[in-house]
Amino acid sequence: MSDAGSADPAIAVVVGASGGLGRALAELMVESGAYERVVALSRRRPDGWEDNARRAWAAVDILDEDSIAAGARLVATLGVPIRIVVATGRLSGFELKPEKSMRALDADALRELFAVNAVGPALVAKHLLPLTPRDRSSLFAAISARVGSIGDNRLGGWYGYRASKAALNMFIRTLAIEHRRARPNGVCVALHPGTVKTALSAPFQSGVPDEKLFSPERSATALLQVMDALGPGDTGGFFAWDGAKIPW
Amino acid sequence: MSDAGSADPAIAVVVGASGGLGRALAELMVESGAYERVVALSRRRPDGWEDNARRAWAAVDILDEDSIAAGARLVATLGVPIRIVVATGRLSGFELKPEKSMRALDADALRELFAVNAVGPALVAKHLLPLTPRDRSSLFAAISARVGSIGDNRLGGWYGYRASKAALNMFIRTLAIEHRRARPNGVCVALHPGTVKTALSAPFQSGVPDEKLFSPERSATALLQVMDALGPGDTGGFFAWDGAKIPW
Repeated sequence: MSDAGSADPAIAVVVGASGGLGRALAELMVESGAYERVVALSRRRPDGWEDNARRAWAAVDILDEDSIAAGARLVATLGVPIRIVVATGRLSGFELKPEKSMRALDADALRELFAVNAVGPALVAKHLLPLTPRDRSSLFAAISARVGSIGDNRLGGWYGYRASKAALNMFIRTLAIEHRRARPNGVCVALHPGTVKTALSAPFQSGVPDEKLFSPERSATALLQVMDALGPGDTGGFFAWDGAKIPW
Repeated sequence: MSDAGSADPAIAVVVGASGGLGRALAELMVESGAYERVVALSRRRPDGWEDNARRAWAAVDILDEDSIAAGARLVATLGVPIRIVVATGRLSGFELKPEKSMRALDADALRELFAVNAVGPALVAKHLLPLTPRDRSSLFAAISARVGSIGDNRLGGWYGYRASKAALNMFIRTLAIEHRRARPNGVCVALHPGTVKTALSAPFQSGVPDEKLFSPERSATALLQVMDALGPGDTGGFFAWDGAKIPW
């Protein structure tokens, strides 16, 4: 991304930066040196993340739109966001496990999954996308999941997680269509991080072979490579950690 | 559908039968003579729908799972459902119009749309699909919408309606995978009814040419033809009123 000729400092924003994958993404973005500052927005301050010239943090709960708006105001005071990654998500609702059967469908758990996995990222876009530059390239990436692909669904189960990620994918595609009208170099995508070894997925890793179970750092490294390779023609797409396109 | 050799009366169930399309579907299914009885499940009794040997009604609000469960118990006393059509839906949340821009995204309106358009039909499936026969063909059809196709989304806008229908489509596909394991002749599909001239869509018909604006009866007639032509190989699919497959 060329920022030649721009006076405003270019910053990166990671929403959900206290989770395993979000924190790894934020750390790698600091280490890359590509941004004036990396802003972490999350409910808890990420471990070891002290505010300084390179790092900032604000408390944001994506279930609370006022906190998202406040986070966006902080971002606006720090610079122009050219990369926004939303790495929030929940695998199951409340204390329930992902549904193995339709018998397990639970209205309250489903409501929570749609709120966290789909509506939250859409509200982040509502408040942060308008801050992206009109004259430079920028990227809005939401961490989705391959199991959110309707066409790729062969095993069934995990009703709420799948449906909430499908909804997220639709939000991303719809956002991309609106966003590119005003910002032809702005890219919005959904990304699949692979199966990442985090607290979130700990109960569900048993069927995954070791070589397909990524550390947060490995997944984050792969995702940043994919993000760096994306151009305006990719906006509205759904890409895996290896850059492969995923069907809707 | 051949029901030769079966002792149990075959019935059809229409959920959301008091709306324009749902009522037209229910009436046509009575007129077809193909079912012992047609059971209407809806918040209000459909106009002119008196309980008799051919028709039954029970108050069901798809936002209230207890009422869905009670409706399912009534259905179980009347016969074996071989056709279940869920024709509920809401185009926008609360008093808001469908969002033209991301600025209009509203968490409460989105929550309502996911509840009505996606979670409600999934809960109907949870309670009614187990009643379908194991040894006969049956069909569960949810009225979705082409604008719920992520791949077909070129115009943007209508965030909440689109995302809730994409979530519904994922539920249908996931239900189909689970359902066919126990019932190889059971079919679950999502259907696009065309743009139907009803109270629901009244504010949004201005851009639709007359020949593409269907009466509820015309749409219902077309949808019933599509349903009659579906076989087990079609389960988990998304079909338009003319039988054409729609991408996810």
